[in-house]
Amino acid sequence: MKVICNQSELVNSLGTAFRAVSSKTSFPILECFLLEAKDSNLIITANDMELGIEIRILCRVDNPGRIAVNAKIFYDIIRKLPEDIVFIEVDQDYVIYITCGKAKFKIAGLPGNDFPPLPAYERVNGVKLSQFTLKELISKTIFAVSLNEADQIRTGECFEITGNKLRVIALDGHRAAIRNIEMKEEYNNQTAVIPGKTLLEISKILSGNVEDEVNIFFMKNLVIFEMNHTIVLSRLIEGRFYNLNPMLNSGYTTKVTLNKREFSDCIDRASLLVKESERRPVIIDIKDGVLSVNMKSSLGTMDDELTIFKEGNDITIGLNPKFIMDVLRSIDDEDITLYLTTVGNPCFIRDSENSYIYLILPVNIGNR
Amino acid sequence: MKVICNQSELVNSLGTAFRAVSSKTSFPILECFLLEAKDSNLIITANDMELGIEIRILCRVDNPGRIAVNAKIFYDIIRKLPEDIVFIEVDQDYVIYITCGKAKFKIAGLPGNDFPPLPAYERVNGVKLSQFTLKELISKTIFAVSLNEADQIRTGECFEITGNKLRVIALDGHRAAIRNIEMKEEYNNQTAVIPGKTLLEISKILSGNVEDEVNIFFMKNLVIFEMNHTIVLSRLIEGRFYNLNPMLNSGYTTKVTLNKREFSDCIDRASLLVKESERRPVIIDIKDGVLSVNMKSSLGTMDDELTIFKEGNDITIGLNPKFIMDVLRSIDDEDITLYLTTVGNPCFIRDSENSYIYLILPVNIGNR
Repeated sequence: MKVICNQSELVNSLGTAFRAVSSKTSFPILECFLLEAKDSNLIITANDMELGIEIRILCRVDNPGRIAVNAKIFYDIIRKLPEDIVFIEVDQDYVIYITCGKAKFKIAGLPGNDFPPLPAYERVNGVKLSQFTLKELISKTIFAVSLNEADQIRTGECFEITGNKLRVIALDGHRAAIRNIEMKEEYNNQTAVIPGKTLLEISKILSGNVEDEVNIFFMKNLVIFEMNHTIVLSRLIEGRFYNLNPMLNSGYTTKVTLNKREFSDCIDRASLLVKESERRPVIIDIKDGVLSVNMKSSLGTMDDELTIFKEGNDITIGLNPKFIMDVLRSIDDEDITLYLTTVGNPCFIRDSENSYIYLILPVNIGNR
Repeated sequence: MKVICNQSELVNSLGTAFRAVSSKTSFPILECFLLEAKDSNLIITANDMELGIEIRILCRVDNPGRIAVNAKIFYDIIRKLPEDIVFIEVDQDYVIYITCGKAKFKIAGLPGNDFPPLPAYERVNGVKLSQFTLKELISKTIFAVSLNEADQIRTGECFEITGNKLRVIALDGHRAAIRNIEMKEEYNNQTAVIPGKTLLEISKILSGNVEDEVNIFFMKNLVIFEMNHTIVLSRLIEGRFYNLNPMLNSGYTTKVTLNKREFSDCIDRASLLVKESERRPVIIDIKDGVLSVNMKSSLGTMDDELTIFKEGNDITIGLNPKFIMDVLRSIDDEDITLYLTTVGNPCFIRDSENSYIYLILPVNIGNR
């Protein structure tokens, strides 16, 4: 194998592919990139058996071939080369020669055929989104996925497509984050649960530009994201996702509108008194025109008051301040609206169009 | 005690004083700030028994007094308050009330008299430097202090004052970093070894402005830095520092001038192949006009060549690439000059005025 390519292009591609390189594995081949030279392309593949990434860059192929190479060492070497033309050559003993200017590296490779290939897939029923939209959907819901590996289905986000509507749901048993958007086209109805880890990696790869598109293909056990010259494959989480509809359709008896920034600053201050080990709730007391916040812990007490606009009943409720902060960080609006019923029922934070719906289960404050 | 002060001023001062708060101590009082209100000043003191910091801010004192308060909690609370006037009040039970706008905090304090006072000192024979100069002196030598606590004297930097000359020396047994400057005034000759940890903290507090001054007072076991409204005290390291003069006065048989950036890029690349456990040297081979760099490790090999200007003998020497990188990062010049004698003697990197002198002991490459 012999290819000649551009250092900066190669570095960028390796950086992206590196996201799918296994960091903790006893199989040296999973710590590798597969480099494949054919048809004026260098194809870089990484595959940790959950997530796979394939990137194609244009280059001069003097001799086609394939080789696996330790991803970290190869990436580090290419990164530190001058911005110039890079020559990569492999001999029959899988030794890799990397030359750039006067710098010459010689490192050992592994046979390319030992590398586990990415699963094949059909490009049908692709859902088209802007990279900006997908990135936003992920960043504004991902905090609510469960980190508890024993509860597999909640470690993913549910993508629910109904006609031209896409709903994304994350929930961890204490709170839920829901985003609804309308797409330009109609699609077959489908539901898939994508691992949170995959979504985190995807969101780092997405450009965030409104003009750039991403095509998503849902297979039985697999989801594929295609963008630019990059393909990301991930397994799906099997099983049925929770049905939140009954909860979402319940009414409310208190509606409170307040300034997001003021609320966020206040809860942030209250959080100071929360020790990791204690998990104290903030007590939120809602009356006409005033929302009082109280926090009490072994470290001390805090009291604060905010001006609000209220409809309906007075109510006092205990909420986990971290959950409130996570929600407030995910909302761009200047004012937010809380919907409440009783002290034992969830607090909803949503806009009038339901483009976002966040719900937080209350903490029992009966015996304070 | 009751004081009224400005939030942003208080936050800045607490941030600085926090550097002397003990993080790992079984004495709760050492995790505290001492707050002292008197004569229109709030004096904040932190003291981990090695390093002490005292900062004074102007404020309205309605009731003088002193209280100790857990530094982390107090700093966190003040930081999260709105940019406004902060009221701090302490009752006879050492309870501290912090009020800012509608936010009210109540936390427990400790008696101010339990706090260990900073040692007294006399303001005589002060050495005057610009904060910029002291910051530079530290940042360009500190990497060479020893991290080995068993070798106490080398964990500090030697400050040697002779008339109007100041020499700062750091060395760890494998390399040395020396900076020489001329001061505006003449001082009594004196030598002190200041702990590296103190210098690191000082350099973070120094403004880095040429116009700002710092006064340094050397006492028997103590050094004091006075700047703006801040006083930093530190113990000195006792004992005699190493005398490097015999080594510095030896001649050279090879003198090489080369571009610093090219050399640094090349050594950086060679470092890629160094595994933490292996400690491989780079082999530097100097001939007329060409400096070749070779690195060989279990990961692979690297070869590179640089154009140089050489006087004197050819030489091949093995050096620790990390030590070379540390030196190159500390030099602002575009070209650097190496001075060498034999394969067993140190490599010097210095400018013609000796404003900086770095020396690196070679690694034995006899049996490669």
